[in-house]
Amino acid sequence: MFITLEGIDGSGKSTQARLLAAMLEAQGIKVVLTREPGGSKGAEEIRTLVLEGDPDRWSAETEILLFTAARRDHLEKTIRPALAAGHVVICDRFADSTRVFQGVTRGDLQDKVNLLHEAMIGVEPDLTLLFDMDPTIGLSRAKSRQTAEERFEDFGADFQIKVRAAFLELAAVHPRFALIDAGRSIDAIAADVAQVVTARLAKHRTQAHA
Amino acid sequence: MFITLEGIDGSGKSTQARLLAAMLEAQGIKVVLTREPGGSKGAEEIRTLVLEGDPDRWSAETEILLFTAARRDHLEKTIRPALAAGHVVICDRFADSTRVFQGVTRGDLQDKVNLLHEAMIGVEPDLTLLFDMDPTIGLSRAKSRQTAEERFEDFGADFQIKVRAAFLELAAVHPRFALIDAGRSIDAIAADVAQVVTARLAKHRTQAHA
Repeated sequence: MFITLEGIDGSGKSTQARLLAAMLEAQGIKVVLTREPGGSKGAEEIRTLVLEGDPDRWSAETEILLFTAARRDHLEKTIRPALAAGHVVICDRFADSTRVFQGVTRGDLQDKVNLLHEAMIGVEPDLTLLFDMDPTIGLSRAKSRQTAEERFEDFGADFQIKVRAAFLELAAVHPRFALIDAGRSIDAIAADVAQVVTARLAKHRTQAHA
Repeated sequence: MFITLEGIDGSGKSTQARLLAAMLEAQGIKVVLTREPGGSKGAEEIRTLVLEGDPDRWSAETEILLFTAARRDHLEKTIRPALAAGHVVICDRFADSTRVFQGVTRGDLQDKVNLLHEAMIGVEPDLTLLFDMDPTIGLSRAKSRQTAEERFEDFGADFQIKVRAAFLELAAVHPRFALIDAGRSIDAIAADVAQVVTARLAKHRTQAHA
């Protein structure tokens, strides 16, 4: 089973990805915890190229191509081998982030994102957990991290509001999405995530054995 | 006018690109001499990522995406501004190299290369000079350079033979190609190039003023 976590910056995705991995591993399930952009040696190098430096150094079109290149490497080297071995793959961001960050907020490019995805990736998650919350709180959390990778945080609060809306639109269209209220305590969110994943995993197993 | 130079490694493209630029500049024509992969700050960084290291570090699919990303940056930052200013752009390798190197010699991926090109680049040269020669001679010339960028040279002689054949197939289909016999002296080749370019430039000007 392939699970992705999506949402605005600072929505607690990475923390919840780790807690989810620990919860599944405690049940004896083999888990590969990964992230995008990155998740393989080559993809991490592409990540550095895209996320560091001036926020306007790449156009949205070039970013789409770089993120899709990183995703292809990640898919080949990490995700596909793990799924083939029967592991659960938990991925912090995937193609929905490209659909939202490059496809919607930086121009009307979602058709191009989808075209590249279908031609070069062709894989969708079984379950996408969308961590939804007030974007101003998410932004202040993300800002407090002070990493070199402030590529998207630098675009400001209006940008994060557009990102939230675009994620909610995707969730309304694709049944693989589960909406998680991320404006609560870490424990409350983790309990929600555990419930959703356990239910989908049971359903996934039933389908796989049918 | 947008002129590209294509051919196998070691076919003398880069030397002829410089001679052609000098010849046009001597006539008072403003020239931008550039190359791929690379030709802009971002694209040169992508070039380093693709060309250095183990020849098998990237799949053909990932390479297509990285080269198209580099091309998009090169187009936005270098080629389009130069053409808009009325300069002649001379580019050492362009999309035909991707069609051949990733699209043909590393699997049947030319449809994917063309799909990405149409969606994300959408520009073809006015004239493509194809430097055609015996691939074994080209390979020994390319090998003698001993740079860190031996990404394609490392694939060997059979690879270069396939590359030559694939370039000739493209030239047979697209009227923008002019075939140059690159198995002769530098001066003889330069004289051929000068003649072809002068004729096309005159035709290009007539069309632009029509």
